Amino acid sequence: MHLYDCIHKRRDTRHFKIDEPLPPEVLTRALQAADKAPSVGLSEPWRFRSIDEQEDRIRLHQHFLKCRTEAEASIPSEHRRQLHSTLKLEALLSAPTCLAVFCCTPQDYTLGASHDPRVFEWSVACAVQNLWLSLTADGYSLGWVSLLDPSYVGECLRAPDNWQSMGILCIGKPSTDYGGRPMLEQRGWAYRQKPS
Amino acid sequence: MHLYDCIHKRRDTRHFKIDEPLPPEVLTRALQAADKAPSVGLSEPWRFRSIDEQEDRIRLHQHFLKCRTEAEASIPSEHRRQLHSTLKLEALLSAPTCLAVFCCTPQDYTLGASHDPRVFEWSVACAVQNLWLSLTADGYSLGWVSLLDPSYVGECLRAPDNWQSMGILCIGKPSTDYGGRPMLEQRGWAYRQKPS
Repeated sequence: MHLYDCIHKRRDTRHFKIDEPLPPEVLTRALQAADKAPSVGLSEPWRFRSIDEQEDRIRLHQHFLKCRTEAEASIPSEHRRQLHSTLKLEALLSAPTCLAVFCCTPQDYTLGASHDPRVFEWSVACAVQNLWLSLTADGYSLGWVSLLDPSYVGECLRAPDNWQSMGILCIGKPSTDYGGRPMLEQRGWAYRQKPS
Repeated sequence: MHLYDCIHKRRDTRHFKIDEPLPPEVLTRALQAADKAPSVGLSEPWRFRSIDEQEDRIRLHQHFLKCRTEAEASIPSEHRRQLHSTLKLEALLSAPTCLAVFCCTPQDYTLGASHDPRVFEWSVACAVQNLWLSLTADGYSLGWVSLLDPSYVGECLRAPDNWQSMGILCIGKPSTDYGGRPMLEQRGWAYRQKPS
C-alpha cells in the first residue's frame, strides 16, 4: 500500500472481529517494520512481548478498570464524565493479539542520549508507528492502551528491571473504521485541529 | 512510494546537498503527514517551528559543540572517544531547513494520559516518524539531533513555557545514503541487532 494511504487509513482501533486471529506473517511483517525504525545511537531499545496468558490479560484488564475509574473521577464536567464512561478504551480481553511495549534503556554510553534520556522512548514510539502502518497496509489495526500504571504493567508481566512499560497494543482485524475518522471524533469527545 | 520502500530507505541523515533547498510543497506534505499521526486522547501535542534566523542556528550549534564535548569526555574507551569525535552528528549550520520539535502538554484532562504523562511525547515521536517517511518518499531526509539540553533549546528559540523541546530536525536532500545502511553502522560505531 502507498505510504500516504497507510498514513490516512491508520486508525486507533478498539473494536475488533474477535473470531479473526492475526495471521503470524502479518505480525512478523509488522515487527520487521518496527525493527527498521530510527533509534538514538542505533540503540534499538524497543521490546515487544505477546501477552498470551489469559490470566495476565484478566489482571491487566482489572487494573485498567481501576485506572479508568480514577481517571473519570478527575473530570470536572458531569457531561464529559458521562460521555467518557461510554467510550471503549481498550480491547484487552477481546483483541486477538496483545503486545506489551517496553523501552529497554541501555546501561552503556549511547550516542545522542547523554543530555536527554527521554530519547529512548521516542525511538520506541517510532517503532510502534512503523508497526501500526504495517498492520494498516495488511488490513489490520491496533489500539494503543496507555490508561495504565507502567510500574504495574511491568510487574504483572514479569519484565526485567531495566524495561519500562510503554503501554499495551491491542491488535486485530477492525470491525469498524469509525466512519474514516478517529473514534473520539466520531463519538464527539475530541476533534482534530486540522480536519482533512 | 510503497510503505515498505519508505521504511527501508529512511535514513538518519547528517550530510546534505547544501545548495538544494527543501521545496515548500515537500515540507507541506511532510507536515500534513505528521498531523495524521496518532495522539493520546486526540491531543495532537506536536509543534514544529522552522529555525530561520542564522543567529539562532549559530547559538544552537555552539551549544551542540559544548554538549558534544561533555558527552565525549564521559566515554571510557579512548578508541571509542576518538571514533566519536570523527562522526558528523548534526547539520545545524549546513542543512537547508531546520525544524525544532516541541511537545505542548495540554493543561486539561486528556483521555489516556492520566496515569502516564510520557504519552504526549510518544505522540510527537509518531508525528516525527510520519514526517520522516513522507520526506523519504519525496527523496529528502532528516537528521534528528538530540545531543542538546532541551531547556536551552526552548529558551534559545523563545518557546512558550508549556512547550518541551524534543530536539531539532535537520532537513534536506541527502548527499549520501551511507551505502544503504545507518551511518553509525557504516562508520563502525554501532550495529543493528537484526541486520537485513
